[in-house]
Amino acid sequence: MADYPARNRQYRLANRPKGPVEDDTFALHEVPVPELGDGQILVRTIYLSIDPAMRGHLIDVPSYSPPVQIDELMRGSGVGEVIASRAPAVAVGTKLLGPLGWQDYSVQEGATVANGILRELPASVKSLAAAVNVIGGTGLTAYVGLLEVGRPQAGETVVVSGAAGATGSIVGQIAKLKGCHVVGIAGSPEKCAWLTNDLGLDGAIDYRNERVGRRLQELCPNGVDVFFDNVGGRILDSVLLAMRPKGRIAICGSVSSGYGEGAKPDPVSNYFLFAPRSLRMEGFLVSNYSDKFPQAIADLTDWLNSGKIQSRQTIYDGLDKAPSALRDIFLGQNVGKMLVQVAPEQL
Amino acid sequence: MADYPARNRQYRLANRPKGPVEDDTFALHEVPVPELGDGQILVRTIYLSIDPAMRGHLIDVPSYSPPVQIDELMRGSGVGEVIASRAPAVAVGTKLLGPLGWQDYSVQEGATVANGILRELPASVKSLAAAVNVIGGTGLTAYVGLLEVGRPQAGETVVVSGAAGATGSIVGQIAKLKGCHVVGIAGSPEKCAWLTNDLGLDGAIDYRNERVGRRLQELCPNGVDVFFDNVGGRILDSVLLAMRPKGRIAICGSVSSGYGEGAKPDPVSNYFLFAPRSLRMEGFLVSNYSDKFPQAIADLTDWLNSGKIQSRQTIYDGLDKAPSALRDIFLGQNVGKMLVQVAPEQL
Repeated sequence: MADYPARNRQYRLANRPKGPVEDDTFALHEVPVPELGDGQILVRTIYLSIDPAMRGHLIDVPSYSPPVQIDELMRGSGVGEVIASRAPAVAVGTKLLGPLGWQDYSVQEGATVANGILRELPASVKSLAAAVNVIGGTGLTAYVGLLEVGRPQAGETVVVSGAAGATGSIVGQIAKLKGCHVVGIAGSPEKCAWLTNDLGLDGAIDYRNERVGRRLQELCPNGVDVFFDNVGGRILDSVLLAMRPKGRIAICGSVSSGYGEGAKPDPVSNYFLFAPRSLRMEGFLVSNYSDKFPQAIADLTDWLNSGKIQSRQTIYDGLDKAPSALRDIFLGQNVGKMLVQVAPEQL
Repeated sequence: MADYPARNRQYRLANRPKGPVEDDTFALHEVPVPELGDGQILVRTIYLSIDPAMRGHLIDVPSYSPPVQIDELMRGSGVGEVIASRAPAVAVGTKLLGPLGWQDYSVQEGATVANGILRELPASVKSLAAAVNVIGGTGLTAYVGLLEVGRPQAGETVVVSGAAGATGSIVGQIAKLKGCHVVGIAGSPEKCAWLTNDLGLDGAIDYRNERVGRRLQELCPNGVDVFFDNVGGRILDSVLLAMRPKGRIAICGSVSSGYGEGAKPDPVSNYFLFAPRSLRMEGFLVSNYSDKFPQAIADLTDWLNSGKIQSRQTIYDGLDKAPSALRDIFLGQNVGKMLVQVAPEQL
């Protein structure tokens, strides 16, 4: 066991950004690591998950979760290792997944493991980075959004936007596992090649270089039954035109809506098709479906371990890269999951 | 019993309109009334129902029902009376509701009464005009759209657009019967006064003279749980901003989308709220819920007969007014249900 650490680095919110994350958005603080009390554990952060939704926590607008306050530790989930424990039920060496925050170390209550706020990673997991992605919030979001909101049937056509992103790439693979015809929309020829060559999707559309509407007609000749949307705006509008009667649109996010208060996404006109085609569009938060998590975690762990779901990560090295990682995710710099590696997997 | 009629007038589609219905859209034909064959009945049209959706049947775009063909009888539902019968199960004098077409008389198979395509009006119904509205397709649309798609709970806030129109005015009243806080959006002070003074709605917004977003904040201080939308465009966008988490939007139609091929409704920007607020928006066709019709018809008949639902009609007199009625419904000329009276209720 390593020495008990003395110092902890934390990124705290310093200024609410108007647009992209800037140099003065976060401030780095160094603070002592407290002694553990009874029932507490000390977790060493290994990877932090960087998600588009985190940008929304920086603005002072009421939403499903309260905004991060100025001078508050930046919220974020990740995977870590227990390096000291005064909780009898949680052994040193346990790998945990959950809300660790943007910091090197966190003191947590051992009870958070029992109640599932911090989830113990199964020993069968080979890659911690892949686990953060596939078994963490990203994989759960893909799983419940596709299967509980989109509800595709085998043989149906599924389209996913942001298909080479973290959530999108898992959505596409789950849809293939469920026997669907799957087309991804992504932002470069390289991303599209990854979707069809490596992930096994039936088609991919490069929205920066191809006409989305026309390519949808070619790749989805029967129309679209389920659209899993991470993007919004013009891509949503194009796919709406291609929806089949009784089609379902799962809205995971609207990256194209940009930033902050007053930012408006590109408008959508084709909602007038909702009545004649009996379309359903539903936005969701992964937390709405917490009753599905046990089955989802079991399935996702199985698919990851058996290689049925591939995970790709873009990993920025060092806690000090967390702010730029959050900025870059809106520039499409990542393929697959954006992670920050705070410390080595093994000390 | 009246003499067997010799001549029948029919409006057939002559030219597909690009914009509003025009003088040359329909052509009046006079044709002989055929003799009845075994099992057939002759129905005298009394009222024709004029619905915004009928405009969509004039354009040659695939939709949930095939377009009316050039030279084909204009499709339309209404109420009529059996004036001759060679179907033993259908007595002369029976009042029927269903697809009669834009014509004075129609020869129908008696079997269409047994199978429910033509529905026999209960003898308890006092007003045929009110029955076309409340027990016909309009009332059924309001009933299933509000209760099956919107699913309001007692105490929740329901907003309806096109609230002084045929469907909207029934929606508002059903929502009140279900114990909701109900606000209607309509296009004149007179319409708004009717909603609150006569129909008992809790509030009304005159979208032509008031700021919809601000009035929604005043009249729906807790936000909107269910929005029943007949309009689309800017009104939809305003109400989206006011939706509560897990709110539901039932899309019945988008009158604001205007006419024909290539017509685009006003775009909507606030769909980016779908994910953070877990909103569900669902378009529907009344025919999707045919399994609910028996209960709906029983409830609607009861509410109409007991005065719990008031029906108001704008009645144009004479079959020759059908084209202008269909034009005027898009100009908001009707309060309540737009009908054309083809013949007197009693001969």
